[in-house]
Amino acid sequence: MASDLPAEFALIARHFRPLAGPGALDLQDDAAVLMPPPGRELVLTADAMVAGVHFLADDPPDLVGRKLLRVNLSDLAAKGATPLGYLMTVSAPRTTPDEWFAGFAAGLAQDQREYGITLLGGDTTSTPGPIALSLTAIGHIAPGKAVHRTGAAPGDRVWVTGTIGDGALGLAVARGRLADPTGHLLARYRLPQPRIGLAVSGIASACMDVSDGLVQDLGHICRAGRVTAEIDAALVPLSDAARAAGPGWLATCLTGGDDYELLLIVPPPREAALREAALAAGIAVTRIGAVRSGPPGVIVRGSDGEPMVLETGGWSHF
Amino acid sequence: MASDLPAEFALIARHFRPLAGPGALDLQDDAAVLMPPPGRELVLTADAMVAGVHFLADDPPDLVGRKLLRVNLSDLAAKGATPLGYLMTVSAPRTTPDEWFAGFAAGLAQDQREYGITLLGGDTTSTPGPIALSLTAIGHIAPGKAVHRTGAAPGDRVWVTGTIGDGALGLAVARGRLADPTGHLLARYRLPQPRIGLAVSGIASACMDVSDGLVQDLGHICRAGRVTAEIDAALVPLSDAARAAGPGWLATCLTGGDDYELLLIVPPPREAALREAALAAGIAVTRIGAVRSGPPGVIVRGSDGEPMVLETGGWSHF
Repeated sequence: MASDLPAEFALIARHFRPLAGPGALDLQDDAAVLMPPPGRELVLTADAMVAGVHFLADDPPDLVGRKLLRVNLSDLAAKGATPLGYLMTVSAPRTTPDEWFAGFAAGLAQDQREYGITLLGGDTTSTPGPIALSLTAIGHIAPGKAVHRTGAAPGDRVWVTGTIGDGALGLAVARGRLADPTGHLLARYRLPQPRIGLAVSGIASACMDVSDGLVQDLGHICRAGRVTAEIDAALVPLSDAARAAGPGWLATCLTGGDDYELLLIVPPPREAALREAALAAGIAVTRIGAVRSGPPGVIVRGSDGEPMVLETGGWSHF
Repeated sequence: MASDLPAEFALIARHFRPLAGPGALDLQDDAAVLMPPPGRELVLTADAMVAGVHFLADDPPDLVGRKLLRVNLSDLAAKGATPLGYLMTVSAPRTTPDEWFAGFAAGLAQDQREYGITLLGGDTTSTPGPIALSLTAIGHIAPGKAVHRTGAAPGDRVWVTGTIGDGALGLAVARGRLADPTGHLLARYRLPQPRIGLAVSGIASACMDVSDGLVQDLGHICRAGRVTAEIDAALVPLSDAARAAGPGWLATCLTGGDDYELLLIVPPPREAALREAALAAGIAVTRIGAVRSGPPGVIVRGSDGEPMVLETGGWSHF
């Protein structure tokens, strides 16, 4: 009788089955079933994270799990979608200790409760390389109401949520290049706060989350809408911890990645609605510039009013 | 003006944008929108593939792309679902030549046409390790009609599609351990044939695809249904190429992975319907055994009628 469970299945049963939702068939099937909410459109997004590229091998595993989930929820937030569930694949070296999986799953469980979602399915494999994670998040929205990257028009204003640059500075902290007496920067790098709940639909003419750096991501919106954006560096909201790092880190804040704040393009008549929606969601929003006609691109004005020269437009994961 | 496209985005534009379907927003957004067919349930599955584990680093990249898609389509086929589209994440070393991506995308394009699906979204990142791929496939089915792993009952018969063992023997060929004069085995290892189109819903009481080895996967069905399965090794359909390998390879055929055939549990009154559905789909089906009450597990009877002793119950990817 061949009925022993090999390592892969024991691992799934021990750590991932408790995360499974009703459609996941207890992860005992190779596929999940999901009845979409009637009359709703689905919003789908997938992001990969690799140890040594998107997180550090000795990062606490629960925070790795939560970050994997949150970077995807951040993409759903930018569309104005409500999260439903997710599928996930985990490729890890055979030597990965069971405690790593336990911590990783505990982090996912915590955020499943926080965001009201469940695991629908996935796959676990070994790899001779670093841990490679991939997650597909599924949300829903009223048909035609998803906010896209296109849509920025001359006269619109540029807004961001929260504070910019903490993630990039937190990475510098993790690499021992910057002090972080309060721990704020490292925490922001390790645990993004997806802006789920901010009602961007019907308010923003274009929206995306800032994951590859403010300037680069604003550049994406400008290319998609064929407009020029001008932002004022002095208006970009910085945390106290980022200000304490000093002006030498400003360029890092503007071009570094891992913010997971929302970048919103808002026509002036809707700015009041944005302020109201932000108040209702308990999320800070700040106007940092405007969109005008011109060649696709981003101009960042420094305190002297002159365009700043930035070495890099952002962070490429490839 | 910061508007240069870094490598990641140029790569996506060059190779993956042509694969995008209508809901994918040209892959210029971080998320896709999808209106599910009205009144249909969604079926979702995700599988990862890592170079050196699931494919060989020097496998032709178009076949790697097609295999990645097909192993997921095989899971949809086992549920009886119709494929809709997919999301994909690709983590590859920075040294990966552009030709690899071009070949990989060409393979995906070919199978998109073959199966009538499109790319909905995804992510491309670098990795210091081997190429790590992850794909989430989405299909649809009438509500409540998906076939599950549970449901096998005493008296049901065990059926398989196609031939068993070619994939495992093909891996042995790729590793230089077995001759393959016709090339059939290697082709079967590199390019699975997902049994999309076989109407399993309403016929099979349980179904799954054979990806980790016939004996192990049948063991999953037995555990899920709390039954014993007995199969007759002499009835397991082998290709001419597998027969030519000789009886010394029989155990590999029964326990090796990578078949991507369907394993169907069928009550006797529905066997005629299975034969008809198989004829309509142009897919061979073979009865190899039966299910009875007893402890969960699989008994494989050899040509002498005695249970065979198999060293391994199947292939674990972890």
